[in-house]
Amino acid sequence: MHFEITKQFIDNIKESIEKQDESLAVDLLDDLHPADIAELYDNISIEEAKFLFLLLDGERAADVLSELDDDDRERFLKELPSDVIAKVFIEHMNSDDAADVIADLPEDRQDEVLSHVEDIEHAGDIVDLLDYEENTAGGLMQKEYVSVNITWDVQKCIEEIRNQYEEVDEIFYIYVTDEENIFKGVLSLKRLIIAKPERKINSIYDPEAIYVKTGTDSEEVANLMDKYDIVSLPVVDTIGRLVGQITIDDIVDVLREEAERDYQMATGLSEDVEITDSVWRLTRARIPWLMFGLFGGVLASKVIGLFEEDLTRLAATAFFLPLIASTAGNVGIQSSSIVVQSLATNSMGFHGFWKKLLKELSVAFINAISISAIIFLYNTIFSDSYVITFSVSVSLFIVIIFASVFGSIIPLGLDKLKIDPAIATGPFITITNDLAGMSIYLIISRIFYNLLA
Amino acid sequence: MHFEITKQFIDNIKESIEKQDESLAVDLLDDLHPADIAELYDNISIEEAKFLFLLLDGERAADVLSELDDDDRERFLKELPSDVIAKVFIEHMNSDDAADVIADLPEDRQDEVLSHVEDIEHAGDIVDLLDYEENTAGGLMQKEYVSVNITWDVQKCIEEIRNQYEEVDEIFYIYVTDEENIFKGVLSLKRLIIAKPERKINSIYDPEAIYVKTGTDSEEVANLMDKYDIVSLPVVDTIGRLVGQITIDDIVDVLREEAERDYQMATGLSEDVEITDSVWRLTRARIPWLMFGLFGGVLASKVIGLFEEDLTRLAATAFFLPLIASTAGNVGIQSSSIVVQSLATNSMGFHGFWKKLLKELSVAFINAISISAIIFLYNTIFSDSYVITFSVSVSLFIVIIFASVFGSIIPLGLDKLKIDPAIATGPFITITNDLAGMSIYLIISRIFYNLLA
Repeated sequence: MHFEITKQFIDNIKESIEKQDESLAVDLLDDLHPADIAELYDNISIEEAKFLFLLLDGERAADVLSELDDDDRERFLKELPSDVIAKVFIEHMNSDDAADVIADLPEDRQDEVLSHVEDIEHAGDIVDLLDYEENTAGGLMQKEYVSVNITWDVQKCIEEIRNQYEEVDEIFYIYVTDEENIFKGVLSLKRLIIAKPERKINSIYDPEAIYVKTGTDSEEVANLMDKYDIVSLPVVDTIGRLVGQITIDDIVDVLREEAERDYQMATGLSEDVEITDSVWRLTRARIPWLMFGLFGGVLASKVIGLFEEDLTRLAATAFFLPLIASTAGNVGIQSSSIVVQSLATNSMGFHGFWKKLLKELSVAFINAISISAIIFLYNTIFSDSYVITFSVSVSLFIVIIFASVFGSIIPLGLDKLKIDPAIATGPFITITNDLAGMSIYLIISRIFYNLLA
Repeated sequence: MHFEITKQFIDNIKESIEKQDESLAVDLLDDLHPADIAELYDNISIEEAKFLFLLLDGERAADVLSELDDDDRERFLKELPSDVIAKVFIEHMNSDDAADVIADLPEDRQDEVLSHVEDIEHAGDIVDLLDYEENTAGGLMQKEYVSVNITWDVQKCIEEIRNQYEEVDEIFYIYVTDEENIFKGVLSLKRLIIAKPERKINSIYDPEAIYVKTGTDSEEVANLMDKYDIVSLPVVDTIGRLVGQITIDDIVDVLREEAERDYQMATGLSEDVEITDSVWRLTRARIPWLMFGLFGGVLASKVIGLFEEDLTRLAATAFFLPLIASTAGNVGIQSSSIVVQSLATNSMGFHGFWKKLLKELSVAFINAISISAIIFLYNTIFSDSYVITFSVSVSLFIVIIFASVFGSIIPLGLDKLKIDPAIATGPFITITNDLAGMSIYLIISRIFYNLLA
């Protein structure tokens, strides 16, 4: 069905490398898909990877490199001379993958590697792609595609595909252009196959096809392809000339990365890390949020410190500090993540800002009433202090309303300012809500103490 | 380029509905892609949607229904008679989409709707699909595909595609089988087009193609298609007969849902909600975690209550409770989310359990030393209590190590038990770490008080 890496297989591979037994290694890798070979990388050293990958014939070595994680690739290429990078890998890659690899190299090595690429047209395509911003359709697209002239017939079209096909791995759609290379529409291979040889392209292509411009944001590209179930999307320049195509596999990667980034924000990681990464990288991804949390915690200690007298007077006030702080944090992260997800999937609806706020307030009100009522009941039974009973419930009510509104408004505001709203699910909202929640609780406790005690 | 819903457009649509002006409504919807029409749903009432969607001709009404959110669709279909559901929608849908729609209906309505489907073969396909578990390849696949016999030549193959094509929206790959319908491999349309008409399929198809069985887990299907960049994947039964195919657009949905589920867990939501959902649904998604948090907070108050005397003796002990609790929570959620993401992307590597634990410990040690050192320095300068200075730093150190290990072990354990490890990023780990963190801190504070004060 498909290959699964086993411990046994890794051991065999490592043995072949240790013995420098090239033919054994080649045999072992023979049946493997490039994506499987790339997965081996997590389990071998860079030196071992060098031995293995350079044994593969051109096409396959390049495919393996394309499948590697960005960081793994960067570290691997650091160990190779520029001419090897050019001849073994770049020459055999699609222009988009090649451009990604080159873009990740240090500036001074980029030109060096490109100067070793023998196919000048290919090198030119790569240079063109390097000019586009990374997070745009231009940065995602490849220059390899099959296009036909709108005036041709099916017969001529099929001949042209035979000529162009070597350049392109997979073809799902053919793009239709005029003499000036202005994009006119798309033609599916299915329609081409079922059409009679003498039919004109003009009469069978789809002129309503969706396309994007080179400057279109990659998130928008991903949403379009997902929404309209598009497998390959044509990209045009500002005057409508066809310049490239984006294929669905690149978009699956964009969607995955997007989701991973949001998830990282929500769980307090500053980088995309995995358990196989180095101790240093894992630490680097984790420490920023912990520092931010430390800062928040120190601020919290200052805020509570202002109420030292109250705590000495009634130590039980401190018992409920964690409940108030964590509820404030939980409510805030819920509110902001709902807004972040709705923004990401474009499902905000058309109700205005105030209507959305009113709804958030209604939800917050129900949550606040429920939680406050339960804790009121609990404290009525188990606490011997009216001050505690009243201040915990009243504070929780206010804190939930506050955290809901604050948690919703911040990501909406960030989005308006064109800042990634996912930041809001991270430490900033949590810490602010924690602090605000505790302040509200301590002030209200003091008021109730003065009233009741 | 593509359509964007505007407030103006919604107003026009609503006006046409209010006036019951069918021809105006049809005109307005004429240029729209079914996915765009489905998006209107968020901005109109069910009654308005009924008027609009039933105006569309067969194919398009069915496409719109396929694009709706599961819950929106369920609520919409509740308002329609069974024969309309069958004739307007089910008859014109692919078998996989149709099966999804039927599966979401109440049991008693399923048979009723199916009995109104006139195309018996189509109804049979749907009934077959309903038998598969939802989260398996069988539950994802469609019965519509194009297959050819391995003994045919290119010419015969193209004729057969002309015969079968009406059934299938898009064709990217053709599946090759023998006389018994046993799956043999795939043939890309590209290879078919560039091959000479007299070439045998036998000599141009790919016998190494990846396929899955009907029982394969949908997450595994998604990972395979993502990893190997597969656009359509053949599905076989236990004895290897071809029974269906899964297309990439279905997998994009699976990946998105998976990511959304993990995100929800991490941000404390129990359902997939959006800002356009009802107040009731939003509340239902949010209250479970808040209740759980309430429970944790009450437990925390109990734990702190055990140390009431200590707090009265040295109120400053309470100042740092939130810092300890939030650091414990943050570290725990970081650790568990790294494990969850690594498990989800199959990038756990082959190092054994102890090696992973050792790495987690190293990272935890660096974080713990850094954070403790900073707070030690801070308290040395700003706090006048040695008890506080020592107990905060020592506790933070222990708490970070504890929360890291606990946060890593729990999801690994859940995964071993075949329980979704993403649960671990939710309330359970956070609350446990909060509680454990505070207990450690309060005990250590008492020890230092007895030693130093």
